[in-house]
Amino acid sequence: MKTLGYYNGKFAEIDEMTVPMNDRVCYFGDGVYDATMSRNYKIFALDEHIDRFFNSAGLLKIKIPHTKDELKALLNEMVRKMDSGNLFVYWQVTRGTADRNHAFPEVGANMWITLRPCELADIYHPMKLISAEDTRFLHCNIKTLNLLPSVMAAQKAAEAGCDETVLHRGGRVTECAHSNVHIIQDGMLKTAPADNLILPGIARAHLIAMCKRLGIAVNETPYTLDELRQAEEVIVTSSGQLCGVAVELDGQPVGGKRPELVAALQKELLAEFMAATAE
Amino acid sequence: MKTLGYYNGKFAEIDEMTVPMNDRVCYFGDGVYDATMSRNYKIFALDEHIDRFFNSAGLLKIKIPHTKDELKALLNEMVRKMDSGNLFVYWQVTRGTADRNHAFPEVGANMWITLRPCELADIYHPMKLISAEDTRFLHCNIKTLNLLPSVMAAQKAAEAGCDETVLHRGGRVTECAHSNVHIIQDGMLKTAPADNLILPGIARAHLIAMCKRLGIAVNETPYTLDELRQAEEVIVTSSGQLCGVAVELDGQPVGGKRPELVAALQKELLAEFMAATAE
Repeated sequence: MKTLGYYNGKFAEIDEMTVPMNDRVCYFGDGVYDATMSRNYKIFALDEHIDRFFNSAGLLKIKIPHTKDELKALLNEMVRKMDSGNLFVYWQVTRGTADRNHAFPEVGANMWITLRPCELADIYHPMKLISAEDTRFLHCNIKTLNLLPSVMAAQKAAEAGCDETVLHRGGRVTECAHSNVHIIQDGMLKTAPADNLILPGIARAHLIAMCKRLGIAVNETPYTLDELRQAEEVIVTSSGQLCGVAVELDGQPVGGKRPELVAALQKELLAEFMAATAE
Repeated sequence: MKTLGYYNGKFAEIDEMTVPMNDRVCYFGDGVYDATMSRNYKIFALDEHIDRFFNSAGLLKIKIPHTKDELKALLNEMVRKMDSGNLFVYWQVTRGTADRNHAFPEVGANMWITLRPCELADIYHPMKLISAEDTRFLHCNIKTLNLLPSVMAAQKAAEAGCDETVLHRGGRVTECAHSNVHIIQDGMLKTAPADNLILPGIARAHLIAMCKRLGIAVNETPYTLDELRQAEEVIVTSSGQLCGVAVELDGQPVGGKRPELVAALQKELLAEFMAATAE
């Protein structure tokens, strides 16, 4: 298969897949998701993504119709059906199919999976950023399907010819539209704490672990947009690019003052990904 | 037909309708909706709901694939196909069908409609409320499909045996999970202003207009949960119940001090609905 979609046990190419009009995702965005990259038919950091997925669902009281082991087996089995082993591996659970009514229905949840060819984005692509006020809800720790503010922020970045939008609440940097963002200050990694204002990124966790391994101090504490503008380096992490480095914010240069430090982090994080997904 | 679903020109009973897995509503909740009641095959306040629908879509830069007149004609035509003329008339537009990618795709939007039998809820049902902190995003003026916080708040009310949840931001009342809420204070209607923290309800607009007709002063200004607890009356408006009166908040009695005033509002608002939807 070139692409592969799954919905409650049915499989087909994604473009051929349909879902019930009354799935609650269609009216409420009532579901959570997770996603990661596969290379050489090996799904990267799958346990961590599965753990986060179950945590997201639990916070919204959605009962995933599989155990963690069943879901891992299903994802691995689907990946093996594909023409290419380099894939964007995406899955979500929605609260079920029922007439539109806000309160929970007495039905089981729906399981969705999509696989499509995808390469890890170039970790060395110099990133350009814009900034915008963070107007999202206060549940950003949950990886929900309520993503309209992220859609609007990503579109704004695209229209500006940029890669990402740095969101901030009254000056305090939270994260980007679909990435976490961090700074190097006095040779130390500063990153927003994993509270309800940011997604606890898996790539963020790997960056923090790598900093500790390389002897770079880590400070999980709020920082401001002004600190980001003055930072020695600005790092953007996501499952799709692992560890990008920003060179511009709102048209002004940022970072670039500790190139050896970010180069070491990028080299090691890329090596970790490559080793975990080696043939 | 008993129920009727519509998606981009296709019609069937709602339970038989399916939609593409790659509709952006499935990944992002990327769309807006509106809804109203029909009685005797007459759709109530249709122009106002259509105007709000186009406004919601415009704020998110979604291009509705119909003119207002086309959409009104389509809704009226569909209503006439139904076994009963008493219906919940619901429609939405989503940003299109494309591979998952946050920025806007270069495709047309998708139009959805669902009709199902429904009676106006009993305007005289005494409503019980609970309260909760409003954790939603700052775009509540747009009628989007990102409704998870409303789902969770409605579920909380249902589990408490109550009808609605009053949301407040640090004490300031905004609205309910799927209704607007207002108070009578010193014989005057006090209602939160139509800013980005509340949906500009059509039933709210009708309540305000009716107050003015009946000589009741209207004050569109923020008020607090404490003011609601002390209010002479607490009024909850929605397209499904028009003008309910609350008798309880968090297990404590509220309102009940100006029964003649709320009775007059309920009588006139119900009469307005009945006249507009008479055979």
